[in-house]
Amino acid sequence: MSNYEILSTINSPADVKKLNAATRSKLAAEMRAAILNRVSKIGGHVGPNLGTVELAIALHTVFDSPKDKIVLDVSHQSYPHKLLTGRHQGFTDDAHFGDISGYTNPDESEHDLFVVGHTSTSVSLASGLVKARDMQGQKFNVIAVIGDGSLSGGEAFEGLDNAGDFKSNFIVIVNDNEMSIAENYGGLYGNLAELRASNGQSENNYFKSLGFDYHYVADGNDTEALIAVLEEVKDITRPVVIHVHTLKGKGYALAEQNKERFHWSLPFNIQTGELTVSGAKGYGAYVAEYLDVQAAHNDKLAVINAGTPGALALQGFRAKYPEKYFDVGIAEEHAVAFSSAMAKGGMKPVALFFGGFIQRAYDQLSQDLCLNKSPAVLVIEGCGITGMDMTHLSVFDIPLLSSIPNLVYLAPSCVDELKRMLDWAMAQTDFPVAIRTPASAPQNLTYAPKTDIALNKFEVVKQGSKVALIGLGSMLSLAEKTAEKLAEKGVDATIVNPRFANGLDEELLTALLSCHDVVVTLEDGVLAGGFGEKVAGFYGDKAVKVYNFGAAREFTDRVPVEELYHRYGLTPEQIVQKILG
Amino acid sequence: MSNYEILSTINSPADVKKLNAATRSKLAAEMRAAILNRVSKIGGHVGPNLGTVELAIALHTVFDSPKDKIVLDVSHQSYPHKLLTGRHQGFTDDAHFGDISGYTNPDESEHDLFVVGHTSTSVSLASGLVKARDMQGQKFNVIAVIGDGSLSGGEAFEGLDNAGDFKSNFIVIVNDNEMSIAENYGGLYGNLAELRASNGQSENNYFKSLGFDYHYVADGNDTEALIAVLEEVKDITRPVVIHVHTLKGKGYALAEQNKERFHWSLPFNIQTGELTVSGAKGYGAYVAEYLDVQAAHNDKLAVINAGTPGALALQGFRAKYPEKYFDVGIAEEHAVAFSSAMAKGGMKPVALFFGGFIQRAYDQLSQDLCLNKSPAVLVIEGCGITGMDMTHLSVFDIPLLSSIPNLVYLAPSCVDELKRMLDWAMAQTDFPVAIRTPASAPQNLTYAPKTDIALNKFEVVKQGSKVALIGLGSMLSLAEKTAEKLAEKGVDATIVNPRFANGLDEELLTALLSCHDVVVTLEDGVLAGGFGEKVAGFYGDKAVKVYNFGAAREFTDRVPVEELYHRYGLTPEQIVQKILG
Repeated sequence: MSNYEILSTINSPADVKKLNAATRSKLAAEMRAAILNRVSKIGGHVGPNLGTVELAIALHTVFDSPKDKIVLDVSHQSYPHKLLTGRHQGFTDDAHFGDISGYTNPDESEHDLFVVGHTSTSVSLASGLVKARDMQGQKFNVIAVIGDGSLSGGEAFEGLDNAGDFKSNFIVIVNDNEMSIAENYGGLYGNLAELRASNGQSENNYFKSLGFDYHYVADGNDTEALIAVLEEVKDITRPVVIHVHTLKGKGYALAEQNKERFHWSLPFNIQTGELTVSGAKGYGAYVAEYLDVQAAHNDKLAVINAGTPGALALQGFRAKYPEKYFDVGIAEEHAVAFSSAMAKGGMKPVALFFGGFIQRAYDQLSQDLCLNKSPAVLVIEGCGITGMDMTHLSVFDIPLLSSIPNLVYLAPSCVDELKRMLDWAMAQTDFPVAIRTPASAPQNLTYAPKTDIALNKFEVVKQGSKVALIGLGSMLSLAEKTAEKLAEKGVDATIVNPRFANGLDEELLTALLSCHDVVVTLEDGVLAGGFGEKVAGFYGDKAVKVYNFGAAREFTDRVPVEELYHRYGLTPEQIVQKILG
Repeated sequence: MSNYEILSTINSPADVKKLNAATRSKLAAEMRAAILNRVSKIGGHVGPNLGTVELAIALHTVFDSPKDKIVLDVSHQSYPHKLLTGRHQGFTDDAHFGDISGYTNPDESEHDLFVVGHTSTSVSLASGLVKARDMQGQKFNVIAVIGDGSLSGGEAFEGLDNAGDFKSNFIVIVNDNEMSIAENYGGLYGNLAELRASNGQSENNYFKSLGFDYHYVADGNDTEALIAVLEEVKDITRPVVIHVHTLKGKGYALAEQNKERFHWSLPFNIQTGELTVSGAKGYGAYVAEYLDVQAAHNDKLAVINAGTPGALALQGFRAKYPEKYFDVGIAEEHAVAFSSAMAKGGMKPVALFFGGFIQRAYDQLSQDLCLNKSPAVLVIEGCGITGMDMTHLSVFDIPLLSSIPNLVYLAPSCVDELKRMLDWAMAQTDFPVAIRTPASAPQNLTYAPKTDIALNKFEVVKQGSKVALIGLGSMLSLAEKTAEKLAEKGVDATIVNPRFANGLDEELLTALLSCHDVVVTLEDGVLAGGFGEKVAGFYGDKAVKVYNFGAAREFTDRVPVEELYHRYGLTPEQIVQKILG
């Protein structure tokens, strides 16, 4: 459909309020077409947005945004909201795709209250707005929208528990599409099923147990039914949950049929659903292959993840070894503690996380895992400088993990080394070991690992003099390229593969002093608190110049990787310029 | 009581199993006397331990530890368990107090399965043991004990949710003493009250909603009743919650009457309850005084904490300004998100955390707060090198907070500067600001702050030459003392107060180069990823020697502060020795 008859007239929520049931229905169809137009061409969240078209129409029909405050959890379902708040061009006009992000952002619209991208935060955030409103004697509705999958995160519970004894207006809409990113896991989902089966009448009710009033909407894709219940609770003076049963992927048959595949997608053909782009085989696939091989002969293996099997390439493993596979829900804290205890209980757990999400479990890494020296293995995937949304960066993991005692943090430079590191981590029983895999695809290296992994031992890739280039993990490739540039300048640089992101090979670093004036560190992450600063600290009182290259401490939003590399001086030319002057 | 007739015969749980109801009753009284003997003399958790004496007896009567696995949440209620597992000398014999810690620790006993000190972890940890058991075809009971207060933490929910659909043995004992560390807040506590009022019969039941079977024990201090229900659920093949209603502080009238005061105590007189030691006025008290003054004239002020008003000296504020005071439960994640949203909603929230607990909210600091640039104020209290248990260290905050973009992290050197920083933080609206207050009492400084706080501007305390000493926060005192020692050696050292833990005053640092050969950084926290390494990184390519002094990346357990200072070279003599050689 290229004719957006109704949608093109919607420039703000005021325009939505003018519609009648018939035009709302037409609008819903046009919105779905607009969403598909965008996501099929540039990728994005498919199912969550298609499933909440009617909810967005109902919300903007009944409530008065931005006076009334709507907070969307994760905000991966924000497209319908964006379509109704003056941003439809970002969907209908390919030239304007770049105008909007995939998440809410106050810089984009006054109807977006927070930058949101991580899960389970909406109730907490909205409840702060409730109390700020009440303390200032203001009057408006505060609405949090949260998906059933997001309910498994601890922050969502903390927010619901706190808000459950509020004495004023707070409306929580639970968008239950019977799916997390993948399938749901956890006892709570039995309760949601019970509530659906009983048309909301079951006495056993998680939300009531936390103090909320409760309404159920059996068909959450029925705009008129939604409007009716929202009208009923509007201006309520108590906290209330509206449990809305929706169909993830609604209106796009392929997404309705394969909800996990179409939770998020790279660009695809709308007719066939097939991807129209293909990426190189990433590190995640190699990790999954490794686990598959392990599972065949290692009866102690358990593979744990927190609700993201797709992003971690674990779907094959899940199908083949269901008894060794544990998706604990979107519950990274629990995932870390659970893994630690499995190791203490005699198993060899491997827990996988997306780089930007491991930060959701810092306390558990410190207390439940490292204080207990549990020899669990963590794989932190997709790390390094990317062009992602600012909510999904994964450049903060090295500072985060490197100050925790007892943890060993490894950064492979290539697939061969990844396997060596996994072997080493699986075999040892002294420490928790985390392995950092790059977001970037494996690169061609001149280098091939020669020595076995040994605690805090770096490997000299090429012995030279004057300048030593220490390239951590994926940055070894940049070290090699920089060495080539230096060779053109007559400098025969040494190249070092440090392997360990949080431990220094003091012997090797000391040895470098004998014939090097300059040591360069390269890391695929934020400099503040990272690897390079540790090297600089070590050399503080030595007669050698140290240059640290890495990312700045900033949130970057969909900035192309090449641009970031250039901004951070991470090109061979810039590095040579800086160190040779 | 100095006669431990029964207790002295209990050298392992096997001895507990030999007792009858009469001797169990006598044992309980002796255990209380032993607990009071210890805590009155050296301090410790009072109420949580007194309240669970009968529960510990019942657990070790019915179950067979260490074959059956008992995991205690926080483990501040582990004294009764320790008394029954071969460690009664640590309570009855003053010479042996040092043999045991205040928490569980596998190095102490095979009956302690994890080092635990933070809240809300037991269900997660125990559920890992459940799955490790099942995968290995083993047979034993797994029991998690968790207090009602701990249920407010997200990790506890994540664990309960995951475990709620387990299909095998898992026993969760909810020790409901109607108290958190302070009073409970949250909708869940209404449900617990409903369950108590209905003798467990209410259909509205949080635990059932998560998939658990459920039993209620109205008198959780009745050993025989507890034994009966534990016998009933022993070897159960489903997850079950035993909701046990106990009296916090049971058997010690003063603790029964004032549960919050006797949650944890410094040494006290058993007869009067009065403390027998007194500490210097700490930074927490000055922060509380500041908030009190603010509250009188700033109608935007809201004060938030996560269940620890006592440790944060907020009890006075709570009583005086209840409408400006928000205890959100032991829910640090929610506390941070809630504060961020209150700031967005037009208030000026000040959220206070104990230094070791802020790490429970890293993701919320990053996403909910800093990504949104909410101008909330955080006060991180009790930071720096202490002689605390290894579960309660607070030396990791600088690396933790310093890599997060948009956050300003301040470290006052004295009370006057603390107030200036609070004023600056309250007045500005550009950034989230965190202020780090030291665990150590305010020290006498020669220095008094001269200049106003300005973003990333350091202050020169004393201009000298050759050696510059940069003493962050409480370490400014050490910088002054070191300068005195250097003066004895004929070196007129410069002293710098950096004020900012995570931002460098590049202009000042560059200016130092003109007349200094050595720059020394001193910080009251772990070096890895901290402040000093940033200075070393900045000076990497400059002709100046940089020495970083601070704590090692290690978990230290009840090591006296003086010993740690010496271990880390943090004495004037050691510093002078190192930098002058």
